[in-house]
Amino acid sequence: MNLKIGVFDSGVGGLTVLHALGERIPEAEYLYFGDTARLPYGAKSARTVAKFAIEAAQFLQARGIELLVVACNTATALALPAIREAVRIPVEGVVEPGAERAAAATTRKKVVVIATEATIGSHAYMQALAGREIQVCEKACPLFVPLIEEGWAEHPVTKSVAHAYLDDVFYDYENGPDVLVLGCTHYPLIKGVLRSVVPWRVEIVDSAEWTAQSVARKLGIQRTARATPGMELACFATDSVERFRRLGQLFVGQPLENVTLVDLGG
Amino acid sequence: MNLKIGVFDSGVGGLTVLHALGERIPEAEYLYFGDTARLPYGAKSARTVAKFAIEAAQFLQARGIELLVVACNTATALALPAIREAVRIPVEGVVEPGAERAAAATTRKKVVVIATEATIGSHAYMQALAGREIQVCEKACPLFVPLIEEGWAEHPVTKSVAHAYLDDVFYDYENGPDVLVLGCTHYPLIKGVLRSVVPWRVEIVDSAEWTAQSVARKLGIQRTARATPGMELACFATDSVERFRRLGQLFVGQPLENVTLVDLGG
Repeated sequence: MNLKIGVFDSGVGGLTVLHALGERIPEAEYLYFGDTARLPYGAKSARTVAKFAIEAAQFLQARGIELLVVACNTATALALPAIREAVRIPVEGVVEPGAERAAAATTRKKVVVIATEATIGSHAYMQALAGREIQVCEKACPLFVPLIEEGWAEHPVTKSVAHAYLDDVFYDYENGPDVLVLGCTHYPLIKGVLRSVVPWRVEIVDSAEWTAQSVARKLGIQRTARATPGMELACFATDSVERFRRLGQLFVGQPLENVTLVDLGG
Repeated sequence: MNLKIGVFDSGVGGLTVLHALGERIPEAEYLYFGDTARLPYGAKSARTVAKFAIEAAQFLQARGIELLVVACNTATALALPAIREAVRIPVEGVVEPGAERAAAATTRKKVVVIATEATIGSHAYMQALAGREIQVCEKACPLFVPLIEEGWAEHPVTKSVAHAYLDDVFYDYENGPDVLVLGCTHYPLIKGVLRSVVPWRVEIVDSAEWTAQSVARKLGIQRTARATPGMELACFATDSVERFRRLGQLFVGQPLENVTLVDLGG
């Protein structure tokens, strides 16, 4: 298979999705686009996010991708239909797979979604879970991304912030929610901290993981994830290549070699 | 006097400078431009910041301002010469006035500057203080802006973060630095927390305040600051007007009425 898959995010967070895709579909060739000059999308309006996302999608389409994964919850939440309309290839988002898994995993029918302000404000997860008699609590956690990008994924301050955000939500140990959806592709990096803050019986749904699984299934690939001994990958960033390399390493656990600076105009 | 002053920042932080200007030069008419669609500038490259800043400066020039205040440390640090070259009006930055005050205030000849990653990486304050036999310690504090924008200016977590950033820098109570420069226009909002974290004899230099004073002096206005009973102000933002209003209020302490959405193209 010579499939060319495009992965798009506002920054480096989508590398968690890329990583999960590489474990399941290692034979594909990947193009990753990080719109680092205009990140973060999390606090921007739907109109602005759609405009930026479409530019990125068209950039990747012009480079021959056959499938686009929008590895950004904000862009998926605010702009997936607009992106689908603007390109000719299939487009997968990260909201639907995470929501599907959450629905399957909750026995108490109570799910918590944490994400950026814009994703929460869009109620994308609430809509994806609608009509299933599931109680959805949406909680914006805008400090997690900067904490992760500061390299504080395991810092005590990050744990304090997680307590400040989540203690109220999970106060009812016996009858509270039993699923926590990571509605931002940065959050897998603080899974350890979150694990230590929420009750032990809560399942943490990593949407990066479930998106990769969903893409593989749609491509007819039935295979368990395995380590990737170096997938074929080209990265594009709209701002500092060094910063992209440095931060990206936090996400994929290995140096990123092939990173090109791109100017989307403006 | 019918002076029209333009104030430019990547977001709402520059409103601290606008506020200080309004107290000193209340008779002027102000145009404030917040490039909120593309903020924050703090983690972006010099090339990208210069491009964005020049677009904003030209936007304000086209609206008839006679003086531009770059109320953004990152843009001043990375792009002041480029902005000056791109417009025909006088341009004032926020670095020089803060540095001047720091030099005058330090008796131990040891100054600490806190700011965003990009401002620190540019060494703009170090350069502005060069040749005066002052020891300058520059410390990037990338979490302060998101904490302030989360409305946590007085939250215990913000104090923990301030300790994590600053305890090492001020460990030497007897002979350590005696000046702390707030090298980011957001930081005046956490002056209280910073005051409680650094030794009491450290002077905290608010560059917003000193920039306003410097502009007033250059205009020949000799007057102490006073409350502004409603200055003439029009705001422009490149993203969500509501968010600009909501956040802006944190900075000026009153609702912002006249805010217009602007598309700088792209």
